[in-house]
Amino acid sequence: MPITTIGFDADDTLWQNEAFFRLTQERFAQLLSDSDPAHLTERLEAAERRNLGHYGFGIKGFMLSMIETAIEVTQGRVAAPVIAEILAAGREMLRHPVHLLPHAREAVTALAADHRVVLITKGDLLDQERKLAQSGLGDLFHGVEIVSDKTPEIYQMAFARHGAGPLQAAMVGNSLKSDVLPALAVGAWGIHVPHDLTWSYERAEPPIGSPRFRAIADLGALPALMDQLRNLP
Amino acid sequence: MPITTIGFDADDTLWQNEAFFRLTQERFAQLLSDSDPAHLTERLEAAERRNLGHYGFGIKGFMLSMIETAIEVTQGRVAAPVIAEILAAGREMLRHPVHLLPHAREAVTALAADHRVVLITKGDLLDQERKLAQSGLGDLFHGVEIVSDKTPEIYQMAFARHGAGPLQAAMVGNSLKSDVLPALAVGAWGIHVPHDLTWSYERAEPPIGSPRFRAIADLGALPALMDQLRNLP
Repeated sequence: MPITTIGFDADDTLWQNEAFFRLTQERFAQLLSDSDPAHLTERLEAAERRNLGHYGFGIKGFMLSMIETAIEVTQGRVAAPVIAEILAAGREMLRHPVHLLPHAREAVTALAADHRVVLITKGDLLDQERKLAQSGLGDLFHGVEIVSDKTPEIYQMAFARHGAGPLQAAMVGNSLKSDVLPALAVGAWGIHVPHDLTWSYERAEPPIGSPRFRAIADLGALPALMDQLRNLP
Repeated sequence: MPITTIGFDADDTLWQNEAFFRLTQERFAQLLSDSDPAHLTERLEAAERRNLGHYGFGIKGFMLSMIETAIEVTQGRVAAPVIAEILAAGREMLRHPVHLLPHAREAVTALAADHRVVLITKGDLLDQERKLAQSGLGDLFHGVEIVSDKTPEIYQMAFARHGAGPLQAAMVGNSLKSDVLPALAVGAWGIHVPHDLTWSYERAEPPIGSPRFRAIADLGALPALMDQLRNLP
């Protein structure tokens, strides 16, 4: 069955994202320089994981977790101006310009000519909409799904809504955990495009031996891969 | 043309919402009891409006705006444990049980039998999903749209996706600004179900003289109204 729909992850697949989180984490560490940076990172990551069920993914939840961690590591002694700096750093993230990754525009443009291309991303609704608008890629996509989490059910729904179901779809992204494994789980192709920076939460073991798993170095290789998959016996 | 699709707003139309914000605002005022409560409310509302373009609608943005206001009204002297209390109050909001409004279940059940019923709501993605799941109404809806803002374009898209377009659709909600006026603007019916508590941001003048505007006291009156509209000459 030919692949008729291609899903693209957004953050760190089409454009930089984790780099902005890392920069903000560095600023956070400078603000709390009395704490050991490694310990701070560990407490922040623990807060993020603990709060994921309340806040979901995205910058606003990250801001709230940074504030919580600042209070925690200082035993409630952090000064309000430091909290104000954390708020400012978060608002800057929400305004950061969109930096497309290499070949993102060419790959989506080329594939949109003979596939349905769908953006499937998680995070804060407004922030993802802003980045898509700023990316200049918005008009290339036949559909956009901003979801609270990337589960097998989400891929089932998205590929049914925007195509002929997961068996005729491929998902392309930098996260094995969120983009590749749950897409493979519903029978779609899962195409991994690794990114140098990947949030610890998104890491997973590659699905060795899965016939529908592929990995490419960057999006420049995607059109040729899709051609090759089309001509599989 | 018969109405084939009915859109329902969620917060303060199907279930209580603003009441939880007011309770949290009271707790916020107690935490900052050195400030005049009226002044505090004014500063908080100003922060919410100022931040809307960054944070969008929802509890996480409200939490961030409360923290910002606490720092502002104390000239940077608020103690970290107060910030921790604000975070705790926000997390409680994100866990609050769903209280359905009178007749919500019966109205949606009755109308789902011979219309496509669609939930159209704004706010944090995960929080809205949680409330819908807890409401027990999830299975009644043919579609769910969680959006970053309620504009005429959003109603155009939602009523096209889930029906025969806005001319054959009605939107039901407590906010004239978000539910009624933008739905009327694209040619749908706009049905206002006022709620005692409505956030100042959501207030607007009723569209007197608009032929597709109706107001009802509560959702108990909705099935009869829809029957009446169906039999219009």
